[in-house]
Amino acid sequence: MERKEPVRKRSILSLAAVVMAIWAADFQTARTKSQDDNLISRLKVNISRIEHRIRKLAEFGETAQGGVSRLAFSDEDIQGRNYVISLMKDAGLDVRIDEAGNVVGRSQSQNPALPPIMFGSHTDTVPNGGKFDGALGVVGAIECAQVLLENGAQTKHPLEVVVFADEEGGTIGSKALTGLLLPEAFDVASQSGKTIREGIKAIGGEPDRIEKAVRNKGEVKAFLELHIEQGGILHSKDIPIGIVEGIVGINRWDVAIEGFANHAGTTPMNMRQDALLAAAELIVAIRQIVTSMPGLQVGTVGRIKAEPGAPNVVPGRAVMCLELRDLSSGKIQSLFDQIQKKAYAIAEKTGTKISFSLLDAPALPALMDPRTQKLILQSAQELGLSTFRMPSGAGHDAQNMARIAPAGMIFVPSVGGISHSPQEFTRIEDIHNGVNVLLRTILKIDQL
Amino acid sequence: MERKEPVRKRSILSLAAVVMAIWAADFQTARTKSQDDNLISRLKVNISRIEHRIRKLAEFGETAQGGVSRLAFSDEDIQGRNYVISLMKDAGLDVRIDEAGNVVGRSQSQNPALPPIMFGSHTDTVPNGGKFDGALGVVGAIECAQVLLENGAQTKHPLEVVVFADEEGGTIGSKALTGLLLPEAFDVASQSGKTIREGIKAIGGEPDRIEKAVRNKGEVKAFLELHIEQGGILHSKDIPIGIVEGIVGINRWDVAIEGFANHAGTTPMNMRQDALLAAAELIVAIRQIVTSMPGLQVGTVGRIKAEPGAPNVVPGRAVMCLELRDLSSGKIQSLFDQIQKKAYAIAEKTGTKISFSLLDAPALPALMDPRTQKLILQSAQELGLSTFRMPSGAGHDAQNMARIAPAGMIFVPSVGGISHSPQEFTRIEDIHNGVNVLLRTILKIDQL
Repeated sequence: MERKEPVRKRSILSLAAVVMAIWAADFQTARTKSQDDNLISRLKVNISRIEHRIRKLAEFGETAQGGVSRLAFSDEDIQGRNYVISLMKDAGLDVRIDEAGNVVGRSQSQNPALPPIMFGSHTDTVPNGGKFDGALGVVGAIECAQVLLENGAQTKHPLEVVVFADEEGGTIGSKALTGLLLPEAFDVASQSGKTIREGIKAIGGEPDRIEKAVRNKGEVKAFLELHIEQGGILHSKDIPIGIVEGIVGINRWDVAIEGFANHAGTTPMNMRQDALLAAAELIVAIRQIVTSMPGLQVGTVGRIKAEPGAPNVVPGRAVMCLELRDLSSGKIQSLFDQIQKKAYAIAEKTGTKISFSLLDAPALPALMDPRTQKLILQSAQELGLSTFRMPSGAGHDAQNMARIAPAGMIFVPSVGGISHSPQEFTRIEDIHNGVNVLLRTILKIDQL
Repeated sequence: MERKEPVRKRSILSLAAVVMAIWAADFQTARTKSQDDNLISRLKVNISRIEHRIRKLAEFGETAQGGVSRLAFSDEDIQGRNYVISLMKDAGLDVRIDEAGNVVGRSQSQNPALPPIMFGSHTDTVPNGGKFDGALGVVGAIECAQVLLENGAQTKHPLEVVVFADEEGGTIGSKALTGLLLPEAFDVASQSGKTIREGIKAIGGEPDRIEKAVRNKGEVKAFLELHIEQGGILHSKDIPIGIVEGIVGINRWDVAIEGFANHAGTTPMNMRQDALLAAAELIVAIRQIVTSMPGLQVGTVGRIKAEPGAPNVVPGRAVMCLELRDLSSGKIQSLFDQIQKKAYAIAEKTGTKISFSLLDAPALPALMDPRTQKLILQSAQELGLSTFRMPSGAGHDAQNMARIAPAGMIFVPSVGGISHSPQEFTRIEDIHNGVNVLLRTILKIDQL
């Protein structure tokens, strides 16, 4: 879309004064502080507007179970994006769709030549997913732009609110924007039924010119993403703000266990080479090994198959999938080494053979920028909010953005740790806190 | 088929003399013994004939892998049965097909009014099964009748060689013969594609008059079945003759484990309710419990499913199948009680719920007749063969026959314990021993 003038024009306040109030409180006199406090309070986000918009966005693709199905590239996805584009325009942003299908809304700024501060998330969902995953980060980002506009507080750097295309299908839009999308991805079928190529076209991108969407290192001042945690740590600890240290690396292996299929009636217990028994021992061992080290690493066996799979046949073969995630590739490797060693011992004991093969290319850990983490921490502290530094166990667009810019993520609690489900829920006060922290952090980055 | 006169007529020896030689050796004088030894040696079975016939029978339904597919009621099954009928006639038996499709070949006897001694097995196979399962018992049974005929040794009791219909589909023929076949079984599709009703018709039975096939308690003197072990116990112990104490009871349960499906990246290890982990702990525990008691009981988990079954989702539900087999229903119950108790402890620990539901009606253990076991033991001992008393972990027609008559089973070693496979193999010397033991046992029963 063509850029156009902001809908509303307001007097431009000196943002420096605002930021002094928020950030450099140490140096303020009594009088300045009172003045600046005033400014800060004027920059408070509008929580009822946020709540309304999250609810409204959830109507696009609403399911009978109270969830949302807004599969990337589907009609519902396009409807949701159009709604969000209208909100962006309302927030005074110049909106365009880049070649990858990402929606980018750019603000007026004091110095349009500076690299932009980008922030946002995605609006596509998993099938029958929740109302908050992605949506919160987008609605919250627009709110920040809108509050600044409404208060006439123009930043030095241009702000770019971004709605990434097809996050749930593998952070496709942010991969494209950071030059990480491999050409072979275009022909992969997305959950909407369309290929990625067809999908990008359907939402207004230009897959044949996708390289035009790429931002290089240095071209982006910073990237911020506000997101629900999707896990239960913040909720169970009763902490409102999570500061993401990084997005974990993910390694997946297919584990094949070869035993010997035999008659379950005629094969004595001591003559069996039971592949499923070996698999079971390994599953138990994986948990023991993963939990034997301090830290938040996780290990999962989510899939298993025993063959031939009849009640009266000792399984001759079992195949399962092992997934390890951690912020440190070294730790993942160390866990895997221990698991593999244990697997060989189990194989020896059970008369089976166990082999591992990498299932996908490993996703490397993506560390969030330490300075940005500090700014998030300060913002939360100034708002009187406690924080918890934590990895993100789930993948996010921020992991790609971290390759080209200092990136930060702000987590807010997911009640019960539930996500990707109609039961996904984040309390309104937590949303309020999250958007306020996002706004302050944007302003702090603007002053760097 | 109509009865007809034996093909060959020979002088009838006094069988009592023969049996004296075989059985009541204690009371023999030096001279009688020498005389009787002579008789015994004349009653030795013809091993090259047996070998030839097993090989010949295996040509009907021979597979590319060297196995046999003679699915009950298929054309190959009918061809195999016709071949066997010709052998029966050659052995002087009056052959008929009963209403259930069982082939019954009856010998001339000293007293046709006496209840017959039945022995035999089946000729149908599993898909791509082996050459020996069932076939050995049938060819061996015919050999016994033929040797007696050739030696003019007529028994007091009529002998009935029986080839049961559709053993692999659930011992259908022997169930019908013993009144155990439920009416609803008729409409079940067999592996040939035909229903049981259509199949029985196709092989010459009369499903609408099936009750005519029923033999009642007291109408059969005894039943004997020679069979390959299908397990590896005899082979590994290097013992030629297994004396079956009984055919194990089989209980099967569906085990459902309910946890909570959650994101594998965002759900810390200590906040998971991983249904597959609980299932794995239970599988390991089942083995521990089953092997903690002395005896040959077996417990198997042959089937498992984890849901939703994705590498990146902690399984919220797992379903598996537990099978327990033993000669004692009490022991099965005791094992199950321990497993259930352990399951509840695992559920408690893992935050899951575990429930058991009976999958099929339990198959009750079928004990073999103790006196018949003793006669098999004596026969083996007289032949200088070591024996091992053991349960049959697999089902056999003998389990149904045991409901109406004293029944006994003779096992011979399966090399490597392999069965239901082209690799199924029993050595010729073991076959030789097995048929000789069968013959002696028949003669001993005839004298009871």
